[in-house]
Amino acid sequence: MEVLLLVLDLIGTFVFALSGATAGVRRRLDLFGVLVLSFAAANSGGVVRDLLIGAVPPAAVSDWRYLAAATAAGLITFYRAALIERLRNPVRVFDAAGLALFAVAGAHKALAFGLEPVMAAVLGMLTGIGGGIARDLLLAEVPLVLRAELYALAALAGAAVVVAGSLLQVPLPLTLGLGAGLCFGLRLMAIRHGWRLPIARPPGASPQDVPDA
Amino acid sequence: MEVLLLVLDLIGTFVFALSGATAGVRRRLDLFGVLVLSFAAANSGGVVRDLLIGAVPPAAVSDWRYLAAATAAGLITFYRAALIERLRNPVRVFDAAGLALFAVAGAHKALAFGLEPVMAAVLGMLTGIGGGIARDLLLAEVPLVLRAELYALAALAGAAVVVAGSLLQVPLPLTLGLGAGLCFGLRLMAIRHGWRLPIARPPGASPQDVPDA
Amino acid sequence: MEVLLLVLDLIGTFVFALSGATAGVRRRLDLFGVLVLSFAAANSGGVVRDLLIGAVPPAAVSDWRYLAAATAAGLITFYRAALIERLRNPVRVFDAAGLALFAVAGAHKALAFGLEPVMAAVLGMLTGIGGGIARDLLLAEVPLVLRAELYALAALAGAAVVVAGSLLQVPLPLTLGLGAGLCFGLRLMAIRHGWRLPIARPPGASPQDVPDA
Repeated sequence: MEVLLLVLDLIGTFVFALSGATAGVRRRLDLFGVLVLSFAAANSGGVVRDLLIGAVPPAAVSDWRYLAAATAAGLITFYRAALIERLRNPVRVFDAAGLALFAVAGAHKALAFGLEPVMAAVLGMLTGIGGGIARDLLLAEVPLVLRAELYALAALAGAAVVVAGSLLQVPLPLTLGLGAGLCFGLRLMAIRHGWRLPIARPPGASPQDVPDA
Repeated sequence: MEVLLLVLDLIGTFVFALSGATAGVRRRLDLFGVLVLSFAAANSGGVVRDLLIGAVPPAAVSDWRYLAAATAAGLITFYRAALIERLRNPVRVFDAAGLALFAVAGAHKALAFGLEPVMAAVLGMLTGIGGGIARDLLLAEVPLVLRAELYALAALAGAAVVVAGSLLQVPLPLTLGLGAGLCFGLRLMAIRHGWRLPIARPPGASPQDVPDA
Repeated sequence: MEVLLLVLDLIGTFVFALSGATAGVRRRLDLFGVLVLSFAAANSGGVVRDLLIGAVPPAAVSDWRYLAAATAAGLITFYRAALIERLRNPVRVFDAAGLALFAVAGAHKALAFGLEPVMAAVLGMLTGIGGGIARDLLLAEVPLVLRAELYALAALAGAAVVVAGSLLQVPLPLTLGLGAGLCFGLRLMAIRHGWRLPIARPPGASPQDVPDA
């Protein structure tokens, strides 16, 4: 179980690092900047979660394999940018898989450290979305996560399944699988169908300006 | 005393969350983005303070009521944005009240964790202003706190009163009240009269370009 | 040894604070904003390192002298901005010295807290570059560190020397000196000769657009 979790965690780290490195290459950062973005995108969510629950030093700091996975993704993207761009759709699928995995693993770890159920689900979501927020902040952009199709909501749903399963004493592998599957499916459906959450009608706007309000 | 502090803390969380949610609605974030900004604006200052003094997990993470207060403020703002805009002046007054409360409560907590007096006052200020900084960073803007009328100085003054009172062994309720009152009053006066700190004369500028230098 | 490390640490804090304050003055922040940028630029790297290795409260929070050094640098820059601008070259030299010192001291502290060698070198680098990242994020800019001439690589090289020296049981003062000297020398050479890391060829660009690819 532990080995499985670690392997899945490193795969998630790798695919998230691809997204950070791709963003860095597009903004014409140099090699080091690309590697920093890879590491930040892959590990910020987990590092913040570990700081908040008191798991110090965070796994991404105490275990060099997280650095290795992120650096490998960064180097591949840097020297084979055209290849990654061509793969864009697979990368989005991997990214959804990484989101799903980080969300359920994050919720599980927060529960293990004794957090309340509601906050454990929130921390699971944060583990999933934190990397994307760090990546976009480092590029001085409003985080895409705050606007993309159901991104964070899918992570929250997956994390909530893990928390509910723990309360109901469902076996862990089952709830991890169900939670990750729900998050992954929701996200893919949202991308395919363009599902979005509503946007508030700003004061003074006439209704026809805001079709989704 | 503890109950009173908690109630005031949750009120502060609520009004700060209103400011974050209002900023999110204006930037046309979707519902989730607005809720994230609510939570970040309301709780970032306290979370950073708790991490820095070693109070892990932070109160905003271990106690679901902080999440509930921030989410309620976010939902109200999202579905009643026009109402909140009409309330803008009351919101500024609430915001000043939240700043005052967070500053004195933050300084008190830092002292309780054994920090030096000067740094306890700085952490009180940070508790008050941290949320606004996080809110603006997430919107990729230079934090307003760094430029608004006496915002951080008022928080520092309120926190300093709590620290001085502790050194002089004045009863806690009195110093909390005095500190919060000083911060609240300074901030309201600064808004009304447009009080500002000086801005440096950039090298090469002639004096008449910089009336306040 | 401890006293020497503290003195060098405070000098590093001072010169990094100069860089933060200078950036704040150029962006026309008010006095308080300039002081916040001074403190953030000088201490963010060390604070993040201390949080990640579990050294709580961080030195910059528990010891008022870090605040004093940063504030002094901020006040001097604010009231004597023209003087600092004229000093620009010396400031760059000081900045390289601060980077070198923070990198080796950070790696040493991470080793003392039991981190793996590779991650200790990474944390040393982070201690050196963290302040510049915080400074630029607060000004809503893409961190210069991600793009400047060999900035982070020089810090990583200096930190790596300290880690290698520890593994080989070389006396500490010698490795600190060698590591700091390597970082300092690399950075100065990179500034003088305009050394840069390569930038990825964005997909679709023809080779002649990207001379360094």
